[in-house]
Amino acid sequence: MSLQPTSSALAIRHAKPSDYGRVIGRVNVWWGGREMAPMLPQLFFLHFEGTSFVAETEDGELVGFLCGFLSQTQADEAYIHFVGVSPEHRGEGAGRLLYEHFLEEVRAQGRSVVRCVTSPLNEDSLAFHEALGFEVDRVVNDYDGPGEDRTLLVKRLS
Amino acid sequence: MSLQPTSSALAIRHAKPSDYGRVIGRVNVWWGGREMAPMLPQLFFLHFEGTSFVAETEDGELVGFLCGFLSQTQADEAYIHFVGVSPEHRGEGAGRLLYEHFLEEVRAQGRSVVRCVTSPLNEDSLAFHEALGFEVDRVVNDYDGPGEDRTLLVKRLS
Repeated sequence: MSLQPTSSALAIRHAKPSDYGRVIGRVNVWWGGREMAPMLPQLFFLHFEGTSFVAETEDGELVGFLCGFLSQTQADEAYIHFVGVSPEHRGEGAGRLLYEHFLEEVRAQGRSVVRCVTSPLNEDSLAFHEALGFEVDRVVNDYDGPGEDRTLLVKRLS
Repeated sequence: MSLQPTSSALAIRHAKPSDYGRVIGRVNVWWGGREMAPMLPQLFFLHFEGTSFVAETEDGELVGFLCGFLSQTQADEAYIHFVGVSPEHRGEGAGRLLYEHFLEEVRAQGRSVVRCVTSPLNEDSLAFHEALGFEVDRVVNDYDGPGEDRTLLVKRLS
């Protein structure tokens, strides 16, 4: 795995609590006006800093972020909760870089399985995860509440 | 701290992944129709079982639940993310019992500071936390996103 940026303009670093305000101010806009903010309380930037990352341009513009954590139930697992990339910066490799940094970090912390979920209707997300080596574990109706079907994805770290 | 139920009808146990379905099916109703489910994805029941609890009556009726976790950034801290009690069972001590089990658990796991947040407008919640020995750290406007002001609460475990 290479941690070199695919675009010279992108830098990835650990998220800081002070990043939360600018992330949460944009996340609904990035999702086309959907109300996403309730899924991302500040706790993820306060208590899971070590496994959360932001992507920025060289001049500090926020391009994307990833919030993940180490499972406290499954000692070999890590989980990616929320990832966002600015619509203006899609296709520049920020998502892949954020995932690669997370995978590298949790591998270094002894985790061998990474899980996340996405909507079964989100073809772009499914293709993105497949390209990163994730496999479909299964599709579960009402997984995250009534009407909230999810495709469960898993990647085993070698 | 006593872990004895104040009502003989209530039992507290660790949350299991299989509890998620019945919790998420009721949480919006318990909050009077507010859309709370996005704040409580299934991950909390899968990856933080050891610090999450449910309260049930003797015949297995769900009375309440608490989802918390150990901070992965602050080695001495634990955090309570989400607590709910059925409106039909308010005043029976379920909330206090859930908190007491959480505090006991995280103390046993070496944590000495417990944090959570609530709405500055929620007088019942503020009084509940004060009665359990929580103190107001501070009130922060837009803490969990635009318009989402929060009172930050903290309890130091002796």
